[in-house]
Amino acid sequence: MSASSRPAPPPYGDLPAGTWRTDVPVLFSHCDPAGIVYFARFFDMANGVIEGWFSAALGLSYADVIGPRRIGLGYAAVAAEFVRPALHGDVLTFAVMVDRIGGASLALSLAAYRAGEPILLLRMTIVTTSLVAHKAIPIPDDLRAALARYQDACR
Amino acid sequence: MSASSRPAPPPYGDLPAGTWRTDVPVLFSHCDPAGIVYFARFFDMANGVIEGWFSAALGLSYADVIGPRRIGLGYAAVAAEFVRPALHGDVLTFAVMVDRIGGASLALSLAAYRAGEPILLLRMTIVTTSLVAHKAIPIPDDLRAALARYQDACR
Amino acid sequence: MSASSRPAPPPYGDLPAGTWRTDVPVLFSHCDPAGIVYFARFFDMANGVIEGWFSAALGLSYADVIGPRRIGLGYAAVAAEFVRPALHGDVLTFAVMVDRIGGASLALSLAAYRAGEPILLLRMTIVTTSLVAHKAIPIPDDLRAALARYQDACR
Amino acid sequence: MSASSRPAPPPYGDLPAGTWRTDVPVLFSHCDPAGIVYFARFFDMANGVIEGWFSAALGLSYADVIGPRRIGLGYAAVAAEFVRPALHGDVLTFAVMVDRIGGASLALSLAAYRAGEPILLLRMTIVTTSLVAHKAIPIPDDLRAALARYQDACR
Repeated sequence: MSASSRPAPPPYGDLPAGTWRTDVPVLFSHCDPAGIVYFARFFDMANGVIEGWFSAALGLSYADVIGPRRIGLGYAAVAAEFVRPALHGDVLTFAVMVDRIGGASLALSLAAYRAGEPILLLRMTIVTTSLVAHKAIPIPDDLRAALARYQDACR
Repeated sequence: MSASSRPAPPPYGDLPAGTWRTDVPVLFSHCDPAGIVYFARFFDMANGVIEGWFSAALGLSYADVIGPRRIGLGYAAVAAEFVRPALHGDVLTFAVMVDRIGGASLALSLAAYRAGEPILLLRMTIVTTSLVAHKAIPIPDDLRAALARYQDACR
Repeated sequence: MSASSRPAPPPYGDLPAGTWRTDVPVLFSHCDPAGIVYFARFFDMANGVIEGWFSAALGLSYADVIGPRRIGLGYAAVAAEFVRPALHGDVLTFAVMVDRIGGASLALSLAAYRAGEPILLLRMTIVTTSLVAHKAIPIPDDLRAALARYQDACR
Repeated sequence: MSASSRPAPPPYGDLPAGTWRTDVPVLFSHCDPAGIVYFARFFDMANGVIEGWFSAALGLSYADVIGPRRIGLGYAAVAAEFVRPALHGDVLTFAVMVDRIGGASLALSLAAYRAGEPILLLRMTIVTTSLVAHKAIPIPDDLRAALARYQDACR
């Protein structure tokens, strides 16, 4: 893939006003011997961002969906573009975008910035599954409605 | 060790008013197949709590101490008492106590509570080291003063 | 606690011949910005060592005990003494010792060495629980018998 | 992206005979409350596989490259396709393929299988950097030669 064709975070100033954002401090435990965030930790961070987005932007508890409701929110595919390294002590602003709402899956993008400078783009495809029957199920109605409302708010 | 002699978190209501506290949500990624916080994750959480306490309660940047100042804050010993399991979706309140300020080491206790109910006690001995010379060094003056002030505020 | 009273790994040469050992390479992902194993990672490593010891030394599958048999092997308490830092590229030899076999709990010590030099001592108290009823249960007979055999082999 | 266009691990039987493989047991600590490997953990696992491949297949020490030689092997981009969940107690066979050897970067694919059944495909682009000057540098000659030899052995 040529460098020019690689996906990249949108410029921070281009994010729609309705885009939900959250600040994540880069902690000692996130960093590797090269002194930068260990790449696998970004996925962990991203899952925490998604949990926060569920309650703050979608009005749903991620823990309730997975726990009492037994609906899995596992990943079918994820991809990351690491634009610049992030360092211990940085504060990263994550923005969450809904790219696609499918039948039994949804696609999100998470972009991270440090003082407006792009650091990272993650694209994550979540599949909704029954944790009882262990198979894909349609996105539950309340989640689907909340995703659609969020997409509208981000236009 | 008999059960009665095991160390335990102080009752939440007995914490001195000046004790610094912070809320940590239990995320999906913290939990194990038994559905509770994976024990090793508590130590990771604790290190993040200590980073937050450095800036909020001590007025020092943990990242600056380790990074530019090259002063290590590694652990010589840690011990945990797991009183009750914590579940995905719980919010844990961590309180930080300074137990001892030594020459080149300090001892902290971190107690965690869920709605006032004790969950966890961690005791952690930090040794200050030169990350250049790789040997123990006296606690830097600004850190020592801040620790003493915090101890006073917790009486 | 005075330095002299702190627990320490037994000298490598003093380990009973029957003590089970396993080598764990220190990977990049285990290490922190100080270039040494991140303390919380040692607990994770230790849990993996215990899983390996279950199958190799006790003849039981840790995954079967927790999964199909629904018996939790969670920790009531753990403590670590970090004697020397371990570096990326080191190979650590872990030895597992059974300190106590109780009614519904067992106490293990794990000592880690690098070329015979002590690095770490972990003491870990495991409580056997029903993952269905969420309460402590007696150590299952097959596990108890295997633990006793192992203790005998280490005399 | 349509399902048919999604990248997938090659059938296990189609791997060239020279492809280096290693077995990774799925441990308790790898798994999440849904009882399957936590997706972020796969990246961590992959980094460990790459470290093992460096020494076993390339004849180079990953720790030496990063440590004494101060050459970073960070990721510019990674992508994962999660084909089937992996469970605690599974043994995953990882195979490493070199997709591209560039000027200052290389692209690897890691495919994981359980008893020959595809579980996971990871594509990872590594950039070689100076950890002193913090900029991209050409792939060192010994690494380039070893990568080319490995590619040849996998034809």
